[in-house]
Amino acid sequence: MTAPWTDRFADRMTHIRASEIRELLKLLDQPDILSFAGGIPDPALFPTERIQAVCAEVLEQTGAQALQYSVSEGLPELRRWIAARMTADGVPCDEGTIVITAGSQQALDLIGKLFLNRGDVVLAERPTYLGALGAFNAYEPAYGDLDSEVPASARLAYVVPDFANPSGRTMPRRERERLLERAEAHGLVLVEDAAYRDLRFAGTAEPSLLALDVARSGGIEAARTLYCGTFSKTLSPALRLGWVCAPQAVIDKLVLLKQGCDLHVSTINQMVAARVIAEGYDAHLERLRAHYRTRAAAMQDALARHMPLGVTWSKPQGGMFVWLTVPEGLDGAQLLEAALAEERVAFVPGAPFFATDAQATTLRLSYSLPGPADIDEGVRRLARVIAARLAYAGSNAAWAATGRA
Amino acid sequence: MTAPWTDRFADRMTHIRASEIRELLKLLDQPDILSFAGGIPDPALFPTERIQAVCAEVLEQTGAQALQYSVSEGLPELRRWIAARMTADGVPCDEGTIVITAGSQQALDLIGKLFLNRGDVVLAERPTYLGALGAFNAYEPAYGDLDSEVPASARLAYVVPDFANPSGRTMPRRERERLLERAEAHGLVLVEDAAYRDLRFAGTAEPSLLALDVARSGGIEAARTLYCGTFSKTLSPALRLGWVCAPQAVIDKLVLLKQGCDLHVSTINQMVAARVIAEGYDAHLERLRAHYRTRAAAMQDALARHMPLGVTWSKPQGGMFVWLTVPEGLDGAQLLEAALAEERVAFVPGAPFFATDAQATTLRLSYSLPGPADIDEGVRRLARVIAARLAYAGSNAAWAATGRA
Repeated sequence: MTAPWTDRFADRMTHIRASEIRELLKLLDQPDILSFAGGIPDPALFPTERIQAVCAEVLEQTGAQALQYSVSEGLPELRRWIAARMTADGVPCDEGTIVITAGSQQALDLIGKLFLNRGDVVLAERPTYLGALGAFNAYEPAYGDLDSEVPASARLAYVVPDFANPSGRTMPRRERERLLERAEAHGLVLVEDAAYRDLRFAGTAEPSLLALDVARSGGIEAARTLYCGTFSKTLSPALRLGWVCAPQAVIDKLVLLKQGCDLHVSTINQMVAARVIAEGYDAHLERLRAHYRTRAAAMQDALARHMPLGVTWSKPQGGMFVWLTVPEGLDGAQLLEAALAEERVAFVPGAPFFATDAQATTLRLSYSLPGPADIDEGVRRLARVIAARLAYAGSNAAWAATGRA
Repeated sequence: MTAPWTDRFADRMTHIRASEIRELLKLLDQPDILSFAGGIPDPALFPTERIQAVCAEVLEQTGAQALQYSVSEGLPELRRWIAARMTADGVPCDEGTIVITAGSQQALDLIGKLFLNRGDVVLAERPTYLGALGAFNAYEPAYGDLDSEVPASARLAYVVPDFANPSGRTMPRRERERLLERAEAHGLVLVEDAAYRDLRFAGTAEPSLLALDVARSGGIEAARTLYCGTFSKTLSPALRLGWVCAPQAVIDKLVLLKQGCDLHVSTINQMVAARVIAEGYDAHLERLRAHYRTRAAAMQDALARHMPLGVTWSKPQGGMFVWLTVPEGLDGAQLLEAALAEERVAFVPGAPFFATDAQATTLRLSYSLPGPADIDEGVRRLARVIAARLAYAGSNAAWAATGRA
């Protein structure tokens, strides 16, 4: 039964809909399934013991502060540490340009809340991160393709320049520069989602969009790029700690919105994170990179070994994802159904990651959780599912070619 | 310098403004000031040692889960515990009617996001909680007085029925029932902010609005009241843990919005809270009530002893606040200025707590932080400031009455 009073709010209630893919994801990580579906970090990499020791320290020494309300912009020492990291990464700035958010998901929500009115156009890559669409959708924008002509109503461009979720792709420097030029020409805000930036395990680092922007425009206060960082992929997603680095005029507004949304990020979580990262953070990142490098290599090997001709895939230099493209005529969602039923292997179909003009022949594979042996076995099974469909499509095509269709 | 690109977003940027009173509050809790300004719980009451022990346990036993992503609706065991409490408090329900939020502040934001379109009218008490206005303002509603005629564009009524912030007032049962009748007649959603409900230290408990609603409508699924609870006043604000109890059809939508906003509340914080409250929670609440009972009594005594004739104040049966009304002609904001300069005593002027038709002759005093001796001394000083203005106003009035004005 649903209360009849909700009828009056039907316009609002029906506007909010579950993402099919998120509902699906809940089913994919069952224990008997070899899964490339989840995009979550390997918990074996969490610095659990260190967090436990620091938790005890913080509560012992500063419990009254750690358990009390705190300011909406976030803990000053955490913001200073982040500002120093940003500075070292080519973005000279101080803590006034940093707001702490509940993961980078909240950064995207606050940015949507500040900059989007209903019907404004958000430009996104094809494919793009599903969770960003989830954050922006609440403000009822329209979407456009980042690579097409920029419509007059475009306000904001959202990009994941490093080892993108879902494509694993890294945007080359020249493309970053062109994007900044276009953003300037069309008066766009650029949202740089840097969720995986610290997880480069191959190749040479590209400057962040914000670093290039600062270099062009002369300083962070003139920059139009809002950089969204997070500790979710490097420390622990459960602490819900991310940040935005942007001109202070923008940060000040985001802080006010943050205050209205949830006052502030958990004080104790901020204090614990600030102490954990104060020592040995770079060595910790090296361990993560080594881990994901091994897993990524195992997946590249397995794909090369098992996949039939006509299947192509990305070769990420960091992050957690490989993007697979299967020949025309196959469909990611149908492949998933078959893969689960016939081979007990899971992945995420690519179509939901498109804000515009979905491409059904795509799949997202994550190598963050399974070990190398499972990666090989899972890819072998997936290859079998794809090969069977290709053979069927091939025989159908041959059959059609005989003129008896 | 502000980036020229922000000009294009001036409509959005100027819409978001700092609340003067929040800016002011930052200045009021200096160590040399006797302050009745802060509305925060006494940190001496935080169960710090227990939280520390449980933190260690949770990380030791279930670190991989505690530090990982979790579901947007919140930890099942925490939601079940809350549902059982709600059931015991007159609202038969299960965990499907509960979503965990980042404090009740986020509950208010999500409710605004779900139900408010620009220009919709929100009805509020006079005075009302400033933070609720902060949450709703992002959706650009208009405000109306809960006690006046209900306009056709009214969508939502927001109330704090128990020991309200800032008034300390408790809504009598008959008024609660009338409010439900009016909400039904006008198709309103009722938002019940129960932030202080567990802190009753005198008198007899009134049924919650949601309990009365469920009794009238036949069950939670037909209820139009959205109950917002929190652990911020009872356990620790820093954990950022609150909840909404409402029909499942509404909860399902709030969960989707929550997912877009920040994915979920900190997993470890939820796990720690669930364990901490599993044992001895009622005894803990009794300690809190005894503490606030003593402080409230000290303030009532001091007010009766020191305040000049013509000043009146509320006598709360719970919570943290006394609401003071001074004679016409005096002004809360001017009194604060004088109180800080002349007597080093602080409080919050009442005017900002009005969504409509502000009453300048009001002050909010909190007794949560100062001890009984400081309460007496602070009230004595404040009374001196008021008495001086009254004498001055009186002499002016006498002067005016002589016809020489």
